Amino acid sequence: MPYLMVQIPKTSAPPPPAQRSVPTSADVARLAGVSRATVSYVLNNTSAVRISEPTRRRVHQAAEELGYVPHAAARSLRAGHSRMVLMPAPDVPVGPLYSQFFNELQWALSRLEYTVVQYGGLGLQGDEAARAWAELRPVAVLAPGGGLGPRGVSVLKRSGARAVVTLGPERIEGAHALLMDHQEVGRSVGAHLLARGYRRVGVLVPEDPGLEIFSRPRLEGVRQALTGTDATVTELPLAYEEKAAADLAGRWRSLGLDAVFAYNDEFAMLLMRALQDEGVAVPDETAVVGADDLMLGRLLRPRLSTVHIELPSGRELAELVDRAVREPSAEPEARVVLGAEVVHRESS
Amino acid sequence: MPYLMVQIPKTSAPPPPAQRSVPTSADVARLAGVSRATVSYVLNNTSAVRISEPTRRRVHQAAEELGYVPHAAARSLRAGHSRMVLMPAPDVPVGPLYSQFFNELQWALSRLEYTVVQYGGLGLQGDEAARAWAELRPVAVLAPGGGLGPRGVSVLKRSGARAVVTLGPERIEGAHALLMDHQEVGRSVGAHLLARGYRRVGVLVPEDPGLEIFSRPRLEGVRQALTGTDATVTELPLAYEEKAAADLAGRWRSLGLDAVFAYNDEFAMLLMRALQDEGVAVPDETAVVGADDLMLGRLLRPRLSTVHIELPSGRELAELVDRAVREPSAEPEARVVLGAEVVHRESS
Repeated sequence: MPYLMVQIPKTSAPPPPAQRSVPTSADVARLAGVSRATVSYVLNNTSAVRISEPTRRRVHQAAEELGYVPHAAARSLRAGHSRMVLMPAPDVPVGPLYSQFFNELQWALSRLEYTVVQYGGLGLQGDEAARAWAELRPVAVLAPGGGLGPRGVSVLKRSGARAVVTLGPERIEGAHALLMDHQEVGRSVGAHLLARGYRRVGVLVPEDPGLEIFSRPRLEGVRQALTGTDATVTELPLAYEEKAAADLAGRWRSLGLDAVFAYNDEFAMLLMRALQDEGVAVPDETAVVGADDLMLGRLLRPRLSTVHIELPSGRELAELVDRAVREPSAEPEARVVLGAEVVHRESS
Repeated sequence: MPYLMVQIPKTSAPPPPAQRSVPTSADVARLAGVSRATVSYVLNNTSAVRISEPTRRRVHQAAEELGYVPHAAARSLRAGHSRMVLMPAPDVPVGPLYSQFFNELQWALSRLEYTVVQYGGLGLQGDEAARAWAELRPVAVLAPGGGLGPRGVSVLKRSGARAVVTLGPERIEGAHALLMDHQEVGRSVGAHLLARGYRRVGVLVPEDPGLEIFSRPRLEGVRQALTGTDATVTELPLAYEEKAAADLAGRWRSLGLDAVFAYNDEFAMLLMRALQDEGVAVPDETAVVGADDLMLGRLLRPRLSTVHIELPSGRELAELVDRAVREPSAEPEARVVLGAEVVHRESS
């Protein structure tokens, strides 16, 4: 891609700071005329030691003047633990639903004076990932998705993590579990379609890598809901591309389906457009149901039936992490935190 | 929200690891029968010292057995710097475009052996944020959006950051700048509408907080493109809600506009649906243009005209960060990295 390179003109500013040495608490102590211990008490807001207001002010002024900031790592080495909550960065683009959930959680943890750090360990898997996270010595780890095993949990705990909380379909030994079982999403859709009289149900399974951890349990949930009935389930792999959707729509009538669970609202929009372009009437010939309850589903015509997914509030979750940190030897808890409810609109 | 609490049954596993002490490199040295220095050489892959294969193996086995992982903070204290690239987490939900960009960047930096850490400092602003980031002693900071000033840059550099790179509309003294100027997006739309003969142009400005850093320059860009012509610009505040869009569509004809730049594709979808429900023909009565070139724009009818936004590749950016880290005293560079091009479809 084309870009323009511009040299920033030199200014008459002081010499580049990178060449000065990094100021230490000893420098601050010298400038303020106090001991290093006093600097530490003041800047770490220790309440155990009484320090006069003028001394406090002098220390703060000296730190400001020198551009000194405490070193979190040094502090955590001294304290034996950090206030860092580590969350592995998700390695698939997250939708608006999860974005909002994570933002809320970050806010809530910040208010409890934790520093939330998302670790971009893309490509690292399982125990290898756990060792990489452990190197940062977080006080708690909040790990979404699968991948982390009992061994990884143990590595983290032995490196000083007081709490390991997983978000996913299963409990991992030694860790608190927030059970997010996407089978529930599929089950709710299966039950809905059955109740509406549909019997030949297709289920879209995105071909995009990384989505299996959601799409597999959603498919499985539909199967469970239809087990023991005369309804059938047909698995429909689909890439998130117009051409792939058009191809699928082109052979739609040969599939003989009367309903389709389209994985989520975005895939539902893609497929519904392709079906409509092909002249397949929704819902008269085929019902379509999405999931996630995004705005775009309400804007489609017919309006899209979907699944509203309930996640725990960020505050609830932050409080759980905080409790777990303060009681590291408590028994691991498991909570079911994903609720799923069909929102019936016009497309099913 | 309702949830279920489940106590995980006790197992016959070893005592909870949190109660054992954290293994140190001294423990590894003792178990392997080598010196601590040897442990450090082996586990940090130092090539300067030759160590026999059997010794290496013994150290790795001992580390494995004890569950020892090196302490990144201790290592960075010894080395005087870390390999941590800190990126503040964005405080608005990011769309698929930015998600992909950040994922790519994380990959590329990981391949250069940096650890990417997203700092969730929601709520912290400007220099206060810079001081919080500095506490983690990152070797580089990559800061999107505005907010960071020359003072913040200086705090970061004096705390050991070798490179500070900003992504935003302006250069900040002392920092490398990747200039992402969203005025360019507005200018390209303004020029497109003008060339297509539209003269009374509305511009949607989302009321959702946090989006001003994009919406203001986009509006300004449209104004610039239309300056000196007989075309007019009308600012249209809009919340991302069906009701608000319906209200706006209800009074649409009284506004006398023949075209609207809808901020992005999602707002364009919201507005276009409301206009169509109101019987306003797109593009015959009013042209609609989005931005971001998402899939959903291609799925709308009429197909949505939009702006394709080009961002630098993650690899390019990672290499720039790496170069900046290796030459901390080089002059700060500025690059224009945002390209904008109108994709003309049926809605304009």
